[in-house]
Amino acid sequence: MKAAKVIILINCQDRPNIIATVTSFVANNGGNIVYIDQHVDRVQDTFFMRLEGEFESVSFSMENFKTQFKDVLAEKFNMKWRIYASDAKLKMAVFVSKYDHCLYDLLGRYNSGELGLEIPFIVSNHMDLKPIADNFKIPFYHIPVTKDTKAEAEEKQLQLLEKYNIDFIVLARYMQIVSDKLIDKYPSKIINIHHSFLPAFVGAKPYHSAYKRGVKIIGATSHYVTEELDAGPIIEQDVAHVSHDHNVQDLIAKGRDLEKIVLSTAVKLHAKRKVMVYNNKTIIFS
Amino acid sequence: MKAAKVIILINCQDRPNIIATVTSFVANNGGNIVYIDQHVDRVQDTFFMRLEGEFESVSFSMENFKTQFKDVLAEKFNMKWRIYASDAKLKMAVFVSKYDHCLYDLLGRYNSGELGLEIPFIVSNHMDLKPIADNFKIPFYHIPVTKDTKAEAEEKQLQLLEKYNIDFIVLARYMQIVSDKLIDKYPSKIINIHHSFLPAFVGAKPYHSAYKRGVKIIGATSHYVTEELDAGPIIEQDVAHVSHDHNVQDLIAKGRDLEKIVLSTAVKLHAKRKVMVYNNKTIIFS
Amino acid sequence: MKAAKVIILINCQDRPNIIATVTSFVANNGGNIVYIDQHVDRVQDTFFMRLEGEFESVSFSMENFKTQFKDVLAEKFNMKWRIYASDAKLKMAVFVSKYDHCLYDLLGRYNSGELGLEIPFIVSNHMDLKPIADNFKIPFYHIPVTKDTKAEAEEKQLQLLEKYNIDFIVLARYMQIVSDKLIDKYPSKIINIHHSFLPAFVGAKPYHSAYKRGVKIIGATSHYVTEELDAGPIIEQDVAHVSHDHNVQDLIAKGRDLEKIVLSTAVKLHAKRKVMVYNNKTIIFS
Amino acid sequence: MKAAKVIILINCQDRPNIIATVTSFVANNGGNIVYIDQHVDRVQDTFFMRLEGEFESVSFSMENFKTQFKDVLAEKFNMKWRIYASDAKLKMAVFVSKYDHCLYDLLGRYNSGELGLEIPFIVSNHMDLKPIADNFKIPFYHIPVTKDTKAEAEEKQLQLLEKYNIDFIVLARYMQIVSDKLIDKYPSKIINIHHSFLPAFVGAKPYHSAYKRGVKIIGATSHYVTEELDAGPIIEQDVAHVSHDHNVQDLIAKGRDLEKIVLSTAVKLHAKRKVMVYNNKTIIFS
Repeated sequence: MKAAKVIILINCQDRPNIIATVTSFVANNGGNIVYIDQHVDRVQDTFFMRLEGEFESVSFSMENFKTQFKDVLAEKFNMKWRIYASDAKLKMAVFVSKYDHCLYDLLGRYNSGELGLEIPFIVSNHMDLKPIADNFKIPFYHIPVTKDTKAEAEEKQLQLLEKYNIDFIVLARYMQIVSDKLIDKYPSKIINIHHSFLPAFVGAKPYHSAYKRGVKIIGATSHYVTEELDAGPIIEQDVAHVSHDHNVQDLIAKGRDLEKIVLSTAVKLHAKRKVMVYNNKTIIFS
Repeated sequence: MKAAKVIILINCQDRPNIIATVTSFVANNGGNIVYIDQHVDRVQDTFFMRLEGEFESVSFSMENFKTQFKDVLAEKFNMKWRIYASDAKLKMAVFVSKYDHCLYDLLGRYNSGELGLEIPFIVSNHMDLKPIADNFKIPFYHIPVTKDTKAEAEEKQLQLLEKYNIDFIVLARYMQIVSDKLIDKYPSKIINIHHSFLPAFVGAKPYHSAYKRGVKIIGATSHYVTEELDAGPIIEQDVAHVSHDHNVQDLIAKGRDLEKIVLSTAVKLHAKRKVMVYNNKTIIFS
Repeated sequence: MKAAKVIILINCQDRPNIIATVTSFVANNGGNIVYIDQHVDRVQDTFFMRLEGEFESVSFSMENFKTQFKDVLAEKFNMKWRIYASDAKLKMAVFVSKYDHCLYDLLGRYNSGELGLEIPFIVSNHMDLKPIADNFKIPFYHIPVTKDTKAEAEEKQLQLLEKYNIDFIVLARYMQIVSDKLIDKYPSKIINIHHSFLPAFVGAKPYHSAYKRGVKIIGATSHYVTEELDAGPIIEQDVAHVSHDHNVQDLIAKGRDLEKIVLSTAVKLHAKRKVMVYNNKTIIFS
Repeated sequence: MKAAKVIILINCQDRPNIIATVTSFVANNGGNIVYIDQHVDRVQDTFFMRLEGEFESVSFSMENFKTQFKDVLAEKFNMKWRIYASDAKLKMAVFVSKYDHCLYDLLGRYNSGELGLEIPFIVSNHMDLKPIADNFKIPFYHIPVTKDTKAEAEEKQLQLLEKYNIDFIVLARYMQIVSDKLIDKYPSKIINIHHSFLPAFVGAKPYHSAYKRGVKIIGATSHYVTEELDAGPIIEQDVAHVSHDHNVQDLIAKGRDLEKIVLSTAVKLHAKRKVMVYNNKTIIFS
């Protein structure tokens, strides 16, 4: 009999006995804990926990479990909580423009099963990358965006997101600023890749700025999109050494490798529900 | 009232409900869990856990707690276990020969309080580093080692280790092979720094071998000493990029920086009881 | 008028005035030096130089220049030398089996123009990757290899290599041992990716060996193929940190990212004639 | 007969035949070139070269050579140039306040001969680090700095710098802003270590800012001091990964290791005349 696997994410004010209470609750409901990790932010006095449990499939009801959890635990500790079935794959929409490197990288990993999610569709304001979507047999929607049609285009995007029941969005070098309306609908659910080591070089053309400043290291940053540009919670960062010998084009080429890996890592962490957002920062569970 | 802080390390065959049982046990004994991390080796079907709990100082007795733990928990799950008071600093003996870089690094960190341990003495087969020990006001013992006096020298070392009630030993570029007798007395308690990326370049003169092989990266490895040379459980490794332009002396100079950091990291992990050894490998808790 | 760009690679016993003599020779032949780098191996007493020069296209004859170089310079200093037109792209054959990650990575970079070479064909002992070759519109040859047909298969490979006038070969996770005959025909011209940090874990299943040894860092190594297995001159290496929490499958997944980048870097260095091989080691010019 | 070793640094507008002309000049003056590297900034159309030559000691006169170089070469190409005897060690003054880690690191390397320079004295606005200076037998000057005495204190510093004939200054976590007067006297000759990955987190308390922003990587930057705070030419940068689990104190401790290595690397590069400054950026020769 296959076990039902459940992921529990919790945060609340730090208090004694949270861990013991939660683990006992899981055990009393017939669950075996196969993963547990916690973090206490002592500055904010806040407790975070991620837990994976396995339950006997026959007797286990997700609905009952959630109700019990809410009544018995969550109210007592005044918790914010989320409970997922581990094997329920999240649905991710991919937004792109003309750059193909992040898209190739994501789809290569998607094909190999590494990402652990579903990609119902790709949307772009240009037609350039449609052949790649075709190769990988993923529906491709072309929604052009101009200054005049921005609101209308976004309406179409929202309809697609709802139609396909999308859980989260990845901006794989999507060269448009996303509106507050979309951000509000998908809070901590839109992942962007910024091609610099944030908070250095916010905004457009970071490689040009890095070249001008003469830095010896360049970076890439994946973060959740918030209303303030490039200021959302950071999920992952990585860097590469450069020298005076690299011109702007060299930085761009080297940066592509960073962008691919940093974005894919963020997507995988989100898909496995390993990220918690708090106070404009992230907790990343192992 | 200050709390009694306790670290619990456990390993046993993996079974359901270990986590819930242990955390409930801690709670039932008046403890609040402030850290918990676990690992399951699915190949060996073995469970590992590290837990930190805080108890009311007035009512808490370490002896009672250990007895309870043994009777109630350890026997039931057939656990191997260790329980420590977090604030009891481990006593570390430092073995050196003539190289000073690892010694300077360890003592600089020791002075700043970063290591979280005590260094009752330094022992060496040479007099060269005595001035450093004097500067830092740490007793220095000179025990020469020759082929003929090796057994006798080791006897003196053992007497020192017992006299000072030493918990573990760091070989900070100590250029002698340690005997099986010492290893048996301090199992998984002697930390060595090997100046290569093990298992590459086992044995003497690894930088010369690295130069000859033309590698593009050099490394350093800290590990527990076992009877087989350079084959003990690895605690920490790090690397640095090199090129055709580096001769052997350059590799040695670059390697010194690696050796210092890798050895200090291993010492800190051991001192904070974050390392478990199993099957000639380590589990490193965060 | 576009300039003729020439790359000169030299090695010889170290002697005074080589640099001045060569640079004057270039100047006297109407060339302007736009890049120069040299290396002296003091252990072997050997001099290496890479130089790029630009010549007026109208008056410049590559044949004359080579003849002059040979007569005036090369014989005087007893040089080994190679002279190339910078814009003559090398032709690279790609050998694959079933793994697709290195192939996707190479072809993605090929498409973006990053590699600076031509790929006339892909050959494989399996049919699995043909669709990828088709997508990128590159001829794909299926040459099955069994114990009995190995010699015959290799004959067919050699015919293809000659037919397409191939300059060098990349083994992009090609899971067959290449015969001495092929190696002799393409000396320092067959690039392999080995999925470990050589010389650690030579041979098959390096990730399994790394897991068993409990290393904290894994690596990948690109090298020229020589008759001794995994012992040829190393071109590039890179590493990634791992922990007790990674099982063999995790190491394999993490390793894929290393393999891709390390192999692509080696291919680019070779294609730009930045690698010199000497004494089973490489000199890598910047 | 020991050879006279000379380092030549040049920059000028890019033109044909500079390399050939300079190398011939060296050869015609009896010199053998043992190192040559060049860089062309195509955006600024500027040429940079570093060259090391060996000359017969008996016949070689540095004064004559410089005069010849100036008359024959420098004026023709309108060069900026510097010529040094390789074995003339630069004199470095060390400015410190209360933090000891960078000082320990520099002096440890100084003692081992790794730095290739002289340290005539250490100066501080506090007495705390005098014992370290005493241990290493280096003169220590205590010049307190208050708001009211700043100008006067700097006068004393300048007198010391002149008295000891200092070539360059390292600010090894010197917690005072250096005045424009000192900067003007030592242009591109004052090396600072900033404890962040510049240009991120300019100014005071960068680790606190990094913590607040929730970055996943911290860095350190060594740069020449210019009048604009933390905006001078970057010499070296390095980074380390961090997580949500690190509090500000952890970042500070981890950062110390970065600061030490990044500052020492910059000092070594400067001492070996491997740094050229141009357009508020650095060219770092290998």
